[in-house]
Amino acid sequence: MQAKVYLKDYIKKTEPILNSFFKGQEKEASKISPITVEMTRIYRNFMGGKNIRGALTKLGYECFGGGNEKAILKTSLMVEIAHSFLLIHDDIMDKDILRRGEPTIHLQYEDIHQKRNFKREGSHYGLSMAIDMGDIGMILSHLLLVDSDFSDEIKTRVLKCFDKQILMTAFGQALDLTYEASQQLSEKDIFQIHHYKTANYTITGPLQYGALFAGASEKEIKKIEKYGLPVGIAFQLRDDELGLFADEKTLGKPIGSDVKENKNTILHLKALESAKGEDKDFIKYAYGNRKLTKKELKRVREITQKTGALDYSQKMARRLVERGKKYIPQITTNLEHQDTLSKMADFMIERES
Amino acid sequence: MQAKVYLKDYIKKTEPILNSFFKGQEKEASKISPITVEMTRIYRNFMGGKNIRGALTKLGYECFGGGNEKAILKTSLMVEIAHSFLLIHDDIMDKDILRRGEPTIHLQYEDIHQKRNFKREGSHYGLSMAIDMGDIGMILSHLLLVDSDFSDEIKTRVLKCFDKQILMTAFGQALDLTYEASQQLSEKDIFQIHHYKTANYTITGPLQYGALFAGASEKEIKKIEKYGLPVGIAFQLRDDELGLFADEKTLGKPIGSDVKENKNTILHLKALESAKGEDKDFIKYAYGNRKLTKKELKRVREITQKTGALDYSQKMARRLVERGKKYIPQITTNLEHQDTLSKMADFMIERES
Repeated sequence: MQAKVYLKDYIKKTEPILNSFFKGQEKEASKISPITVEMTRIYRNFMGGKNIRGALTKLGYECFGGGNEKAILKTSLMVEIAHSFLLIHDDIMDKDILRRGEPTIHLQYEDIHQKRNFKREGSHYGLSMAIDMGDIGMILSHLLLVDSDFSDEIKTRVLKCFDKQILMTAFGQALDLTYEASQQLSEKDIFQIHHYKTANYTITGPLQYGALFAGASEKEIKKIEKYGLPVGIAFQLRDDELGLFADEKTLGKPIGSDVKENKNTILHLKALESAKGEDKDFIKYAYGNRKLTKKELKRVREITQKTGALDYSQKMARRLVERGKKYIPQITTNLEHQDTLSKMADFMIERES
Repeated sequence: MQAKVYLKDYIKKTEPILNSFFKGQEKEASKISPITVEMTRIYRNFMGGKNIRGALTKLGYECFGGGNEKAILKTSLMVEIAHSFLLIHDDIMDKDILRRGEPTIHLQYEDIHQKRNFKREGSHYGLSMAIDMGDIGMILSHLLLVDSDFSDEIKTRVLKCFDKQILMTAFGQALDLTYEASQQLSEKDIFQIHHYKTANYTITGPLQYGALFAGASEKEIKKIEKYGLPVGIAFQLRDDELGLFADEKTLGKPIGSDVKENKNTILHLKALESAKGEDKDFIKYAYGNRKLTKKELKRVREITQKTGALDYSQKMARRLVERGKKYIPQITTNLEHQDTLSKMADFMIERES
């Protein structure tokens, strides 16, 4: 199946389930305070995006012969809820202002602070509420799993795999923060961050949870890594490319924030390595400069193209996707699922947002 | 058994288990980077305190006839690990600088940033790493549970109870933040915060997890609330009292930070209600004033005593403890456990730190 069709179908089918889950949470929260009801609603409204991780959980389940669509649709949402938790915390760390076309959670609460004439620092209130909202999302994702229709044995196995992947993601985030603050970029370091922070968590993990829900063995889920790791790194390469070259409205977040935040990307590294003279100085000046103008950002794009950095990243992403696809037959022998896995891999580097 | 003896015994027995758990985590982290090894060590060193929650988990287990001491000692540490996660995030929100006699985690990472000559803002690096460290602690607490020696059915039941309590705590934290920023204090609001943010999480929850580990029914664990809620609120009243009147070195955190942070405490409310003239103005001036001097803090203490606010809080705490103790026979008929539960309740308002 076409990746876009698979994702669209997943979103269509899970939308009412997600609403109903959050309605239930709202009801619980209403026993406490209107403040907690509002938090639950804001969390629900923050959810969205492509749902790649939730859909891959469902696909992993199908690849390993899982047959209870209703159960997997609901339970796979744990991955999407957890994804939002990580985004909320990441957006604080990256000082991001826009996500999925809306203000980030810390800004939403800063806004609430202002509108309601609260006392004291609005930015600190926004930050604090966003940390708390992330923590809540993390818990909700676990409660969704615990309340699911799978056996306790399966829940426990999934939980272990799920939490290990989140741990790796949080470690990857720490590497990203620390490398960004402390050292020169190297290609090896960048791929290490992409491995821990993105690939496991975006591709390998979700397929593995799905496989475990379908009763797969540890040996079977191990095989998913050979597909997930290269495809996941390719996903991140495309993400970095979109972050610099995409249309802001389509992307739903600001273009160039990786530049302003001095992010460790291959585009950054390669532009720095290959640029000469004034161009090289300009790249050094631009990365980490929070006040970069649109015109200056345009020049970053031009240099990134001119030096071949963009081409390097795109070719590498394509090679990684092709490498990952070779391992699809080790995951499933079902031709239909093989086809969807293959198209999903292509989608990771062909998507526009 | 004397509460202090019970706690000391718990710490003595769990110390090597905690070390061994973190050694294992360090080994896993060493596969990634020296940075992640250091994070694991910093988390381990941050752990400490009175271990009330871990010890109550063990006590709950014993009250309901649990007999595998080795298993409960190890698994109860999940509560202590999660407690540290919440403290790390709370300390960011409260801008606290000292915890358990050491700098808070965001300050430790700010310090690392400075010592290693990292680039860019040290305070934002500290903040970001502390958010990430909290997330990691949250995950570690879950992994400890998942890897424990209990059945999958019990793990799932405990997890549900555990995550619900953490959810309530996070909601309580949001109420605290929001009331602090937005409205006049009322006794009802303060107790609502104490209920959600402290009582469930500190007393009721841990006893319930322990009971569930021992195989208790939902009906049985429900009975723990009548003991846990009043004793837990009393714990918080004593906490607020210590936060204003204790010796800083014994307490391991700064005295008066509740005043500076304009915290919602009964001491604050009652002093405000009962103070007259200049004293009343002074209380208004002092709460929320980050630059309060030691001399001014002394005057806050004097007014808190003079107005009877301290006495009011202490008497209420004692009444709550006595009310909670009445329900001990509903939890267990074992006289020895009843005695420990009773002494634990007293300890909550008699402790010096």
